[in-house]
Amino acid sequence: MANPDVQIFPHATGLAAAIVAKHQEPQDLVYYAGWFCPYVQRGWIALEEKGIKYQYKEVNPYRKERHFLDINPKGLVPAVVYKGKAIYESLIICEFLEDAYPDQNPLLPSDPTSRAIARVWIDHVSKAIIPAFQRLLQAQEKEKQDEAREELYIALRKFANEVQGPYFLGDEFSLVDVAIAPWIVRDYVVHENRGFTREAVSDAWVKYAGTVEKRESVVKTQSERRHLDGIYGRYLRNGAQSEAAKAVRAGRDIP
Amino acid sequence: MANPDVQIFPHATGLAAAIVAKHQEPQDLVYYAGWFCPYVQRGWIALEEKGIKYQYKEVNPYRKERHFLDINPKGLVPAVVYKGKAIYESLIICEFLEDAYPDQNPLLPSDPTSRAIARVWIDHVSKAIIPAFQRLLQAQEKEKQDEAREELYIALRKFANEVQGPYFLGDEFSLVDVAIAPWIVRDYVVHENRGFTREAVSDAWVKYAGTVEKRESVVKTQSERRHLDGIYGRYLRNGAQSEAAKAVRAGRDIP
Repeated sequence: MANPDVQIFPHATGLAAAIVAKHQEPQDLVYYAGWFCPYVQRGWIALEEKGIKYQYKEVNPYRKERHFLDINPKGLVPAVVYKGKAIYESLIICEFLEDAYPDQNPLLPSDPTSRAIARVWIDHVSKAIIPAFQRLLQAQEKEKQDEAREELYIALRKFANEVQGPYFLGDEFSLVDVAIAPWIVRDYVVHENRGFTREAVSDAWVKYAGTVEKRESVVKTQSERRHLDGIYGRYLRNGAQSEAAKAVRAGRDIP
Repeated sequence: MANPDVQIFPHATGLAAAIVAKHQEPQDLVYYAGWFCPYVQRGWIALEEKGIKYQYKEVNPYRKERHFLDINPKGLVPAVVYKGKAIYESLIICEFLEDAYPDQNPLLPSDPTSRAIARVWIDHVSKAIIPAFQRLLQAQEKEKQDEAREELYIALRKFANEVQGPYFLGDEFSLVDVAIAPWIVRDYVVHENRGFTREAVSDAWVKYAGTVEKRESVVKTQSERRHLDGIYGRYLRNGAQSEAAKAVRAGRDIP
């Protein structure tokens, strides 16, 4: 049987389609992306925030095409090719953009201690928030869903407690906001299907999530929801074939 | 019943005891450490490589003492307090040391692309090598041990294929070497108890591991093996109570 995820809707739509269309010319930096992928959205938000010139190339990571495996042997999006060299992993790409374009709207504070504290909270997103979100999405039994939802609430509450406001580090939008934004704009999936509400996290979370989802770079890197339904439908039935989905089923780290 | 890991041998011994003794004076940077912990050894190697002035403070992370939970709410070592502010997570500490002491023996290349590629391989250590090592250590049935050992071989082989020699990035010892070194010097545990051999990985691995374990900063941050036996004995019987041990048992990400 063919992997159903190979049949994914093939390109960005809505506001995201407009910025894809604007980024077709060859540039030093090529961004290999999947329009639907939250990890892709991270790097995409950072590129837009920093005003970097880039060429957008759509890849279906489920097809594992040879030309793309030569760029990222894991076959995962996002990946960057910069002047011929390949870089992958969304947070490493974000840090790379900071290093390579230090003068274009910095997304990390310059003070070493503040940078480290920003990274501690980015790490919390990776190790506590996303795994709980993913488990909630894929959990089939009510008991497992309740457990995962509670874990997600706890992880989000911890994060929300540290928000300086309006953004995580204060007035400046930063990589901490970039790291979490794609899961904020996708939380309607667990709201509609798993009983998740922002209000149950905390007032601070409601306010912060509402601010981040309105940020222009976050808004314009989103496609129409209806094309995501098929993809999230497979997650909700625990049949998705992404590496994250398979890892969660196997009780492994999300790669 | 008391948690047996609380009874851990209380301080560094051997060569590590000598450098602990040299780092008792108050400094701007305080390093909260557990002498036995591989994650602690990472930051410790980086501190020594960079010649940073630091004060070493031994903490038993299993005791979860109040004064330490105020520094790191997770209660985990290593943690740094720098001019009154707390930072934790071993790799974030290493990046912090780079940012805060940029002129003292850099451990990351200055070119943004090379830095990103270094981080891709540090990420491979975190997401592929250490989880496989930990599963091999804790696996009780022969079949699970065989599976984990094979996964570890595959992960190490991929890494070894990218070694420029003598160190990962070439002539300069870097954070990639720092990230993996503590597991190289502890591989005798899986060699003696789980049938692991360096030779079964690849010739490139034998050579690389042999180089890294002789690095002065790696050698002098080690205590005597006999005090580790009790700790690893609990891992080998899958009874250890560290956060990493519990995560592996629960099929969760190593925190």
